[in-house]
Amino acid sequence: MKSAKEYISEHKDRFLNELVELLKIPSISADSKYKDEVIKTSEVIKKSLEKAGCDHVEICETPGYPIVYGEKIIDKNLPTVLVYGHYDVQPPDPINLWDSPPFEPVIKKTELHPEGAIFARGSCDDKGQMYMHVKAMEFMTATNQLPCNVKFMIEGEEEVGSVNLAWYVERNQEKLANDVILISDTGMIANNIPSITTGLRGLSYVEVEVTGPNRDLHSGLYGGAVANPINVLAKMIASLHDENNHITVKGFYDKVEELTKAEREKMGEAPFNLEKYKKALDIDAVYGEKGYTTNERNSIRPTLDVNGIWGGYIGEGAKTVIASQAFAKISMRLVPHQDWKEITQLFKTHFESLAPAGVTVKVTPHHGGQGYVTPIDNIAYKAAEKAYESTFGKTPIPQRSGGSIPIVSLFEKELKSKTILMGFGLDSDAIHSPNEHFGVWNYLKGIETIPQFFHHFTQMSK
Amino acid sequence: MKSAKEYISEHKDRFLNELVELLKIPSISADSKYKDEVIKTSEVIKKSLEKAGCDHVEICETPGYPIVYGEKIIDKNLPTVLVYGHYDVQPPDPINLWDSPPFEPVIKKTELHPEGAIFARGSCDDKGQMYMHVKAMEFMTATNQLPCNVKFMIEGEEEVGSVNLAWYVERNQEKLANDVILISDTGMIANNIPSITTGLRGLSYVEVEVTGPNRDLHSGLYGGAVANPINVLAKMIASLHDENNHITVKGFYDKVEELTKAEREKMGEAPFNLEKYKKALDIDAVYGEKGYTTNERNSIRPTLDVNGIWGGYIGEGAKTVIASQAFAKISMRLVPHQDWKEITQLFKTHFESLAPAGVTVKVTPHHGGQGYVTPIDNIAYKAAEKAYESTFGKTPIPQRSGGSIPIVSLFEKELKSKTILMGFGLDSDAIHSPNEHFGVWNYLKGIETIPQFFHHFTQMSK
Repeated sequence: MKSAKEYISEHKDRFLNELVELLKIPSISADSKYKDEVIKTSEVIKKSLEKAGCDHVEICETPGYPIVYGEKIIDKNLPTVLVYGHYDVQPPDPINLWDSPPFEPVIKKTELHPEGAIFARGSCDDKGQMYMHVKAMEFMTATNQLPCNVKFMIEGEEEVGSVNLAWYVERNQEKLANDVILISDTGMIANNIPSITTGLRGLSYVEVEVTGPNRDLHSGLYGGAVANPINVLAKMIASLHDENNHITVKGFYDKVEELTKAEREKMGEAPFNLEKYKKALDIDAVYGEKGYTTNERNSIRPTLDVNGIWGGYIGEGAKTVIASQAFAKISMRLVPHQDWKEITQLFKTHFESLAPAGVTVKVTPHHGGQGYVTPIDNIAYKAAEKAYESTFGKTPIPQRSGGSIPIVSLFEKELKSKTILMGFGLDSDAIHSPNEHFGVWNYLKGIETIPQFFHHFTQMSK
Repeated sequence: MKSAKEYISEHKDRFLNELVELLKIPSISADSKYKDEVIKTSEVIKKSLEKAGCDHVEICETPGYPIVYGEKIIDKNLPTVLVYGHYDVQPPDPINLWDSPPFEPVIKKTELHPEGAIFARGSCDDKGQMYMHVKAMEFMTATNQLPCNVKFMIEGEEEVGSVNLAWYVERNQEKLANDVILISDTGMIANNIPSITTGLRGLSYVEVEVTGPNRDLHSGLYGGAVANPINVLAKMIASLHDENNHITVKGFYDKVEELTKAEREKMGEAPFNLEKYKKALDIDAVYGEKGYTTNERNSIRPTLDVNGIWGGYIGEGAKTVIASQAFAKISMRLVPHQDWKEITQLFKTHFESLAPAGVTVKVTPHHGGQGYVTPIDNIAYKAAEKAYESTFGKTPIPQRSGGSIPIVSLFEKELKSKTILMGFGLDSDAIHSPNEHFGVWNYLKGIETIPQFFHHFTQMSK
């Protein structure tokens, strides 16, 4: 019987070309200008699932962008794997920092990707990793090696908070019933050090607005006499961290999961080279919460970062103006047990309390999600371990990620099933950044490894 | 012999129409997109000076935008008045806050301007006030009432620091020789409370840049582990003022002119209504340096304001990114004896010293100018006083302005003559803001008052 390895080498060029075509569509969910492109992408996904052998493929309307659903039920007595992914992408800004246009994919060799990497927005997050599952499905159906039932649920709003996916899942629990959820939207430590993400951070994303005078003012006539919304916003943001880089929002740490010394020591064993890390980012020093290592700061500790700020005159040249308003987008990464809605409220209360007389402050919650931890002692995790062992020849390392996939904790709540995060990207793939890319080797390795998970999960479920 | 009042009432409509046409040209010196419009404006000014009766009108090339020069020398033994103004305007941003397009002038009545005001960018600053002098010149030549020699020097780079005017003045001292310089680019307290500006603040304008990682990063994977340039910039800006709103830049106050108790008391006599001031700006409280009144904060005290800030994702929706860079435009208003070049250097040294490990900081000086104080005991000031008395029926109040006309102190240095600032605008005219306007009454009153200054200055110079 044909192996995935053989099938992939026969169809490699087509697998790459299909992904390249998918990457050409700018499915930016955050920007309504791209509405038609996002819709168009959902239709392309629908066709690809049909080609891969799914039945009942449909585009499910939601109050927002549609969800593409497809399934293959071969025997009600066999386990069911629900594959989740998303077809929307982050905005490409700042566009001028891209070496090639974000929606004109090119394959180039890099130091970490000697076999080439596909450069395009969404190549890794998540079109490339989502499409590995479509191609793995094609292999299993084309060679009669699908060992269990499969359901696909591919959404178009992950980058803007999956609000309508939540809406959809709550209304389709029976249809989505499954034994395990499989997602590839994370990374691994290195191509020779496979890892499985066992923890994700939660997220609270807000937009803040500081309003001073009712119009922009001449900084000469009013400078020094009225509160300047930009200076005030800067002061307020600065006060959100203390001298040890602890977050000052009242109650922020109350429910934070504190890892044991043993757990932190185990984490510390994961290979990490601080000098290489700094060199890769061209920084002379790392920065962060006192008392924690870099790997702890970006995984087991909550954070608060300004993702965008604007106000006043930002054009060419000079304008001596005091702006009427200043704005910032602020996000907080949360750890297990921190409730994102509660944290959002704590932030709102705290931030508004910082407003000095002379300005008004508005905090608008944007979106968020809970953190998540996967147990590593269940069948699904063990099956994933075996899958990596068979294709990488190594046991994967369980790893906490700093990223967030808000939907994962919702799946557990609504669908009562665990999620396995089999990510094949690398931190250096620059997701959410200019020149995002995904290794060709990683793409094909994912397609090869996924069927192994289906096989072992089915076996171990007997 | 015909009075200015009669002449103005005969030609009122034409005077307004000519200004409206001038205001239609977007002569934005800060934005190179408008280069042709700025040049075109200089040609319109040239024609208007010729029509007004000037001789030897010429467009003088400079390394930047041209200077329009014209003169009328009637008798070498009579005094010479040099009129300065500028034909460039501020950028109109934020455009969406304008009730009518900034370059499509409309005349509307307002509470403070019952006879109507011209709404357009530059209507008050400075096309409208500069054009008063052109029309006053027309009256004096048309009716043979020009009592002395006149020179006009109208530039196109005042809003970007007058760098090339300085270049021009240094090279044309003989040509520009004069007994007094007359400028209308300031305001007065109210239409029934004429005032003459006797002091101006200096200016230092810089742009700052904070650079962290070499690319935008995913805030989940790197959040909390690397210095976020926006958070760092906010902290640095916040630290520029202490809890009393004193500026913390080392050495900043060393040369600040401290007024005597008597001088401050005299200032305090100028009519000012704090409640009206707050109401006009829709603010619940004023804000500023401890120990000083609002009128002192915006005139005799130096200030530091952020005029613009930007970094990260500022588009629609959300992007969970840590920006590689953050930027701000910062200006400092300076008082007499503070040297703008020295302050700029002090700021640069101080600000760069604030950079934490993990980021690099760059400060780029933009432009600046010295502060200025006019003595109120000389002939020129007395002549201006009489001019207002004859047209307003009131003695004008000497007033310090918070604004800056960097060129004034250069005139004194290079041309060895004093400047009289006869401004006819109101603080509420929203210069540098959306909906800038200039009262029709103020425009015509200026045209009526200026010839009186020429008359009295000539008389008193005998």
